[in-house]
Amino acid sequence: MAVSNVLIVLAHPDPGSYNAALAGVAAETLRARSAEVVISDLYALGFEAVAGRGDMTDAAAEGLFNLALEQGRALEAGTLASDILAEQAKVAAADLIIFQFPLWWYSMPAIMKGWVDRVLSYKFAYGVGQWWDAGPFADKRAMLSITTGTPKGAYATDGRNGDIERILWPLEAGVLAICGFQVLPSFVAYGAPWIGDEGRAAQKAQLAALLADVDTIEPRFFHKLAEFGEDLRLRPEVTPRTPGQHRTP
Amino acid sequence: MAVSNVLIVLAHPDPGSYNAALAGVAAETLRARSAEVVISDLYALGFEAVAGRGDMTDAAAEGLFNLALEQGRALEAGTLASDILAEQAKVAAADLIIFQFPLWWYSMPAIMKGWVDRVLSYKFAYGVGQWWDAGPFADKRAMLSITTGTPKGAYATDGRNGDIERILWPLEAGVLAICGFQVLPSFVAYGAPWIGDEGRAAQKAQLAALLADVDTIEPRFFHKLAEFGEDLRLRPEVTPRTPGQHRTP
Repeated sequence: MAVSNVLIVLAHPDPGSYNAALAGVAAETLRARSAEVVISDLYALGFEAVAGRGDMTDAAAEGLFNLALEQGRALEAGTLASDILAEQAKVAAADLIIFQFPLWWYSMPAIMKGWVDRVLSYKFAYGVGQWWDAGPFADKRAMLSITTGTPKGAYATDGRNGDIERILWPLEAGVLAICGFQVLPSFVAYGAPWIGDEGRAAQKAQLAALLADVDTIEPRFFHKLAEFGEDLRLRPEVTPRTPGQHRTP
Repeated sequence: MAVSNVLIVLAHPDPGSYNAALAGVAAETLRARSAEVVISDLYALGFEAVAGRGDMTDAAAEGLFNLALEQGRALEAGTLASDILAEQAKVAAADLIIFQFPLWWYSMPAIMKGWVDRVLSYKFAYGVGQWWDAGPFADKRAMLSITTGTPKGAYATDGRNGDIERILWPLEAGVLAICGFQVLPSFVAYGAPWIGDEGRAAQKAQLAALLADVDTIEPRFFHKLAEFGEDLRLRPEVTPRTPGQHRTP
């Protein structure tokens, strides 16, 4: 299915950053394919990063507070905070979401983690049994687009920082696939500070080429719910084949 | 070396939460061993989660902003924001840091990720070449103490969510080991909502027993800088033996 509505979620404190430039390349490329593109520039929005009682207009001032349960209750009551509703509307309208961010501490900047914590709320992005291949976003694609400060070798399977596929498992699986998204392979712009204008121009061209053909990208593989037993483990006859699952020999 | 100064960093929106209770168990156990214990309750502090120009009292209002470089500059100029300095003083004084949090989206709540982004700043927690076994915190221990909403089976090596050791690699390696910390094995309280008061009481007792003997806990293994070549990959004669590093057969 052709991509027609795109949401780019961008997290970088500097509007003149390389991350902002990559978001611009993505937007331009996808608009040239006639897609509608919306950018949520989280720093420019001053997006609230901290999930809590402020996420609901009617949360009790004190007492027990289970985030997921409160999110589900407020979603159904129509009392989620307006900034969350605005982002959820963008997610609902998108058939492709791109997350553009610098890899800080092997993960997203806190402002983007807060977007995940608050916007991908219970009963909107997942529910009990409505997850993985039964997740609500099964018709949507999602992709991480990342810059690293450290050169590519450090992210080799035996690299100093660890295999990039294992580093990204918590994001690709634990944020995206769990909501049902078809997860496109992450685009990683390695060692951005060390490669010069020419190296960065080459990375921008790579991202543009990738997105120009976005409809042809094969999503990553994740095991389906039916492959797991009641013990939540892969059935014995299934061979694990993701970066996050394996069997000890 | 005996633990004598402990910092517990706690992230949960509810002061009556199970996470707060586990932080209390840890504090009580370690105080009974005559340790000084300080708790940074990030929600109670209203801790700022978003790294940016506000982290320095003298950041330029606009123009290029590279977080790490600005952090290093401000550290040396003495212009880091006061909330960052306060947390850095606690880190500097501690010989054990415990991070207590619910696993949200396979990672820390955004408020704690923001603590990491802002407090573990360049030239304080790491520097070029001052990382891993050459990191500034080589004399300190650190431990994650986590609750999960999903039962233990989902985190088996072939579990639905993925091997917990691989899920925690970005935190144990990419946040803690990279600063030089001796990383104690993470304490994971699985399936907290589903195990009843009795189950939670047993988990509290496990955490207390662990921390009563904290000096005897063997830190996790990480490869040393000397084991990597100039290409930032493990030298051919070294066999990878962490959850994040491997060689494709």
